[in-house]
Amino acid sequence: MNAKERGRQIIRELRGEAFLAAKDQRLNEFNAPIHDYADEVCFGRIWAREGIDRKQRSILNIAMLTALNRPTQLRSHLEGALNNGCSMEEIREILLQAAVYCGLPAALDAFAIAEDVLRARKLLA
Amino acid sequence: MNAKERGRQIIRELRGEAFLAAKDQRLNEFNAPIHDYADEVCFGRIWAREGIDRKQRSILNIAMLTALNRPTQLRSHLEGALNNGCSMEEIREILLQAAVYCGLPAALDAFAIAEDVLRARKLLA
Amino acid sequence: MNAKERGRQIIRELRGEAFLAAKDQRLNEFNAPIHDYADEVCFGRIWAREGIDRKQRSILNIAMLTALNRPTQLRSHLEGALNNGCSMEEIREILLQAAVYCGLPAALDAFAIAEDVLRARKLLA
Amino acid sequence: MNAKERGRQIIRELRGEAFLAAKDQRLNEFNAPIHDYADEVCFGRIWAREGIDRKQRSILNIAMLTALNRPTQLRSHLEGALNNGCSMEEIREILLQAAVYCGLPAALDAFAIAEDVLRARKLLA
Amino acid sequence: MNAKERGRQIIRELRGEAFLAAKDQRLNEFNAPIHDYADEVCFGRIWAREGIDRKQRSILNIAMLTALNRPTQLRSHLEGALNNGCSMEEIREILLQAAVYCGLPAALDAFAIAEDVLRARKLLA
Amino acid sequence: MNAKERGRQIIRELRGEAFLAAKDQRLNEFNAPIHDYADEVCFGRIWAREGIDRKQRSILNIAMLTALNRPTQLRSHLEGALNNGCSMEEIREILLQAAVYCGLPAALDAFAIAEDVLRARKLLA
Repeated sequence: MNAKERGRQIIRELRGEAFLAAKDQRLNEFNAPIHDYADEVCFGRIWAREGIDRKQRSILNIAMLTALNRPTQLRSHLEGALNNGCSMEEIREILLQAAVYCGLPAALDAFAIAEDVLRARKLLA
Repeated sequence: MNAKERGRQIIRELRGEAFLAAKDQRLNEFNAPIHDYADEVCFGRIWAREGIDRKQRSILNIAMLTALNRPTQLRSHLEGALNNGCSMEEIREILLQAAVYCGLPAALDAFAIAEDVLRARKLLA
Repeated sequence: MNAKERGRQIIRELRGEAFLAAKDQRLNEFNAPIHDYADEVCFGRIWAREGIDRKQRSILNIAMLTALNRPTQLRSHLEGALNNGCSMEEIREILLQAAVYCGLPAALDAFAIAEDVLRARKLLA
Repeated sequence: MNAKERGRQIIRELRGEAFLAAKDQRLNEFNAPIHDYADEVCFGRIWAREGIDRKQRSILNIAMLTALNRPTQLRSHLEGALNNGCSMEEIREILLQAAVYCGLPAALDAFAIAEDVLRARKLLA
Repeated sequence: MNAKERGRQIIRELRGEAFLAAKDQRLNEFNAPIHDYADEVCFGRIWAREGIDRKQRSILNIAMLTALNRPTQLRSHLEGALNNGCSMEEIREILLQAAVYCGLPAALDAFAIAEDVLRARKLLA
Repeated sequence: MNAKERGRQIIRELRGEAFLAAKDQRLNEFNAPIHDYADEVCFGRIWAREGIDRKQRSILNIAMLTALNRPTQLRSHLEGALNNGCSMEEIREILLQAAVYCGLPAALDAFAIAEDVLRARKLLA
């Protein structure tokens, strides 16, 4: 399996076949190389590594994307984290720790996104 | 045990008695309230929580401090991470993932600090 | 008065009873600890301190939230600043200074939010 | 020609008369000094300089605004870049390079904005 | 008085004649335009404005430079703040508030710089 | 030529054989994967692309690394930029534009690094 296929298989396991199909539908001549980069470098090269498991990689992303102020990607990786077995309690702890290290505004923005994601999955009333 | 004592106990377990004593020696009328804040809020309130373990909290900090570009605190929490059972392999994976999400320059800066810490502990030649 | 009550009293004075009631209605099992953190640490511990007055704390937040790129919190603290006696002229000067130090894009984003807030209060046509 | 007129002339050449007229309509007592700052300092003083051409200045802005996480200004300068002769292929290369240095989430956010701009101009299906 | 002279006069009042002389000695063909920019735009145009006083401008800069992670400029503006009548107590409160909003690592880095500045002035043992 | 060789060839052309040899000497079991990442992804995959030339890639990096606050990498890419034919005048214009968009402190830090690099090459007295 080459990096592209390996990366796409990881995305499929992380987000499901429908997510991958929707992503493929957005492909065009302009964005194709960044899709390749995401598939091959991000997922096929880094997520494919051993040493830490996938749930840990999801947890790292919640922390880093909160710090980096990137809400669209944070939402996407919160979905991935829940699929990778991350619990609501764990997400809460990650974001509380972000309050101390990244500041309260970063944590409040991330909590608002996480609440949306949890509610859409009926994990939160 | 109040928040101050609980926080100091966690710092002691994370970094050792000598670290805490050195920290106490730097106390003065100007910085006392930020030391209280670190002891009581950061360690006594957040690190003291359950839901994720201490090694996980160290891992989160390596990721967030790399993203936030805070080398002094990153160095300190790399020490804590090793004390909390984080392996050289795990640190490497965290920083490789940071290369994708925070950018290569963030990861290169963090690798340089981690190499220093590992060498000082004779974990790296 | 404990930190929770002290913090809530400051929020009440800063934003009014209706704001606090709306905030309480959004409380749930997931976000309760970050609300506690905001009430007890942010307001009950830091805003409650003497040494600088509340208007000064509002001014600091406008500057920091502009630098940190956190529009939701910036909007909220612009409301608080106006309640704390900050004038339109002062807000303008803070944001002009941010143009030099944080860059013009940061200032333009903050001016757009401030205009919205001022217009909603009929302070700007 | 003074700095104000020089700056406005550059904005006119970069974005067109209608853009400038719309900008003038948004002028009010609150925002006038930041408009002056943009006209006189940003455009009249810096964009007016020689040493690098206007297309190069547009390219720099795409890179910096991606790094700085300022989507509203990024969108505006992508429009300017296309007017300054920057091609879709060049924009793609700038953003791919941002993926490596600023991180994939920064690049994905910027690609999404660029696709919008390109589609509105019928440069992308 | 033109913007250049006005800016230089403000720098002189803020930091003293020796500071200005040292700054002039570092002038060369490469950096002259950024010195002009600092003198004319930063000081001659923005610091010269009314609406908030100089002490307030120093306070804003401590907050923004802490958030922006710019230690060299933070050190310089801490000197200016003390010259502008900002007390050790006020600096402490600004940085404690930064701990909540910008995160503890940002505040710890800023406290370390402030302690250095205060000690060099014999304001702290 | 595979991505590794292609990347190393680009680094060789950008920085010279001695730079590459020094880099190889710092290789160890911990940092090997980030070196591979730099060689294969950054240089072998992105810098190897057509669409914009190498001088343009150097220019983008000066802009992005100034915005990202990464002085070690900024220094390294200033060296590369000069090797790629970027003139002192062009570097000055890039950094002046950064003053407007990233803020004066970012530009001042970058000017200081650029002066060091230029002086070491005897391009500035």
